[in-house]
Parts: sequence; C-alpha cells; structure tokens
Amino acid sequence: MKDYVIIGNKAVTGGKISLNDLPGSAGRMDVLCRCVTASLFISFGMRRDVNVHLILKGEPGPEKIVRFCGATMKSLNPDERSSGSMIQKALLVDAKETETQSTPGVFVRTGNLSNLLEEFKNKNRMLIYLKEDGEDIFKTGFKLEDPVFILGDNQGVFEDDENLIKNSGAVSISVGPISLLSSQCITIIHNQMDRNEIQSAQNQSEQNE
Amino acid sequence: MKDYVIIGNKAVTGGKISLNDLPGSAGRMDVLCRCVTASLFISFGMRRDVNVHLILKGEPGPEKIVRFCGATMKSLNPDERSSGSMIQKALLVDAKETETQSTPGVFVRTGNLSNLLEEFKNKNRMLIYLKEDGEDIFKTGFKLEDPVFILGDNQGVFEDDENLIKNSGAVSISVGPISLLSSQCITIIHNQMDRNEIQSAQNQSEQNE
Repeated sequence: MKDYVIIGNKAVTGGKISLNDLPGSAGRMDVLCRCVTASLFISFGMRRDVNVHLILKGEPGPEKIVRFCGATMKSLNPDERSSGSMIQKALLVDAKETETQSTPGVFVRTGNLSNLLEEFKNKNRMLIYLKEDGEDIFKTGFKLEDPVFILGDNQGVFEDDENLIKNSGAVSISVGPISLLSSQCITIIHNQMDRNEIQSAQNQSEQNE
Repeated sequence: MKDYVIIGNKAVTGGKISLNDLPGSAGRMDVLCRCVTASLFISFGMRRDVNVHLILKGEPGPEKIVRFCGATMKSLNPDERSSGSMIQKALLVDAKETETQSTPGVFVRTGNLSNLLEEFKNKNRMLIYLKEDGEDIFKTGFKLEDPVFILGDNQGVFEDDENLIKNSGAVSISVGPISLLSSQCITIIHNQMDRNEIQSAQNQSEQNE
C-alpha cells in the first residue's frame, strides 16, 4: 500500500465549489486535483494500491480530509474537473469524525494532519516527508515499504505542520535538483518505486532459478 | 533548447471549444493541456528553454500546430483550464502556413507532424521518440543535446505517424517499466535532464578546480 498526503493550505472546506474556478475561489484546489491524477493514474489504468488523502485547511472550517481510494475508485478520469467534481460532492456531505463515502471510492471526514499522522504511526507505516533539502530518492538506500508520502501544495508546508511531521519521525526526501509542482513530485516518486519493484522482482526471480 | 511534440489524434482543429468539456467535445484536449503544464512548469517558475508543439489532428481540419513558447509565455497558469483557454483562443485565429501569435507566447499555424519533423531535421536537432519498448532514459548513454521529444496522446501514435517518426531517424526511449500518461512521461524526462545538467555542471566545476 502507498499513501499520499497532500496539505491544501487554502483549499476550501465547505460550500459548493465552482469547477470553473478551481484555482481561485476553491483555494488552489487545482493543485490537489493534479495530485490525485498523478497518484492514481497510469496509462489505461489506475494504481489500485494507492490512497490519496487531501487535507483541506481553508475556509470556512473545520479542516477536512478527503480520501481517494484507488482500490474502490469508480468513474474518475484524469482531468482536473473530474477529481474536482468528486471533491465538490464530498464537500456537500455533512462530514463527521468518521468517514462518509460521498461517491464510489471517495470518502470525507473532519480531521487534520495530526489525526492522519497518528493513525499512520499506529499502523507502523513508514512516513516520508517530501522536502527540497531531503535526501535524493534516487540515492536513498532504504527500501520503501508501505510508504506514506507527505507533501505541501503550492504554498509548501507551514511551520506548525512541519513540526508535526518532523515529530512523527518522518524521514525527508527530495526528488531532484529543481523544486517541482507537488503532482510532478508524485510522478517521480511513483516512477522510482515502479523501478524498484521491477528490480526486486527480477532479483527474486534470479534467486529462484 | 528542449522541444516537446505531442500528437493529439482527436484534438479538434476549429470552432469554439468548451473549457467545461476539454476531454469530450474538444477531443481529449485535456491530455494536451496536461502536457503543456508538465513541459513548462516548475514550482514558482517556468522552463524558459522549452517549446511545446501540440499537433491537432481532429475535426474539422486541416491539421494545426499550436506552439507554447516558454521563452515568451505570459499569463499561463498550471491548471488545465488555463492552457485550454489559450488553445481556445488559438483556434479562433484564421491560421496560415506561417505562425500567428494568438496570445503572448502562443502561436498557431496549419501544419502537421511531417512539417515539424522536416523543420527539426533541417536544424540538426536530436529527435527522440517516446515509446514503451524504447531504451530506458535512465540507462541510455547518449547525451541529450537540444532534444526534441515526440509523444502520442491517450491513443498513442498511429502507424502513419510512427512511420514518419522512424523515417526521420528518431531514436526510441522509454521512461520506465510501466506505461504512463503522456504528461507523466514529460515530467520524468525533465527530471532526468535536470539531473544530467546538474551533474555536468558539477563535473565541469571539478575540472576547473
């Protein structure tokens, strides 16, 4: 299982968002939509072993978490408007502390980064913080097992959230020499994991011969 | 200079396209919009050394080429609707065989893949065809100098176009073990080139010490 957590610093938490203005009135929801596409889509298919957790921190509050579940996702297309439409429907749900399914494969609840980190820690998941000064994912020796990647949006990660992430024991990694869009970082992470998995399978196969 | 050529097999060539339905009525224009974002955007900036050539092959014809020029681009945002809006304006221009600028940094003309390949060959540009069975970009030994990358859209590249590309002398490369969205391929190519450039600069710096 692979999980991506994306912090939407201004992403709105209520009301009917306009699909014609995801960047503006919805608080850069377009950034989160691109992250959903990067996390879940491959050519002619979907990564069924991936969850995407969008943390919406914008007005009017309280904070919400919208989860896109690759395993059960239906009717999602790679365009921003498609995931935006699912977020729109999720925001119309009267969110509780436990998840409500708003459309097939999309779940919403009230909650914040602290809640999510606690839950992942309780499951002994490997927490990885995407940060420009982190170790290059191409060079890291450690094996990525059931990783949870935590990324900021276009505004990055503010100090309070960064402290939470660091206190959770997350390791910092980067994806290269240039600072990229959050969705681009996800694409590169996936590509590296795809390569690692193929390599592991080949090594295993050779050992069995 | 780096150029990306993306073949939009069904991308419409005329009329006023609907920004609310880029995937449907505009002939999967969303795929091309994501390619524009992947090609030109980094975090807080734009790749000024990149051109993106969208080949529109859909109805009603004739085929058109819309070029996004990183060097002179203005007012473009990373969301699909932003680049879609610029394509929309380009399609309202009465296109000729020579380029007309439709908005700052966006140019339109009638033309096809054959024209583009010929022009690049005349400039001695290195032509690279993105193909699943090509050599892995991570493993290729050749240096990418002024490369022109040619990609298909969600439908891939049909036989006629593939023959043109192969006859142009393009080398085939792939970006990993899994078939990805065109825009994701571009992100991985850029990342690899960013790494190569940093490495070259470091090598040069060490030689000069």
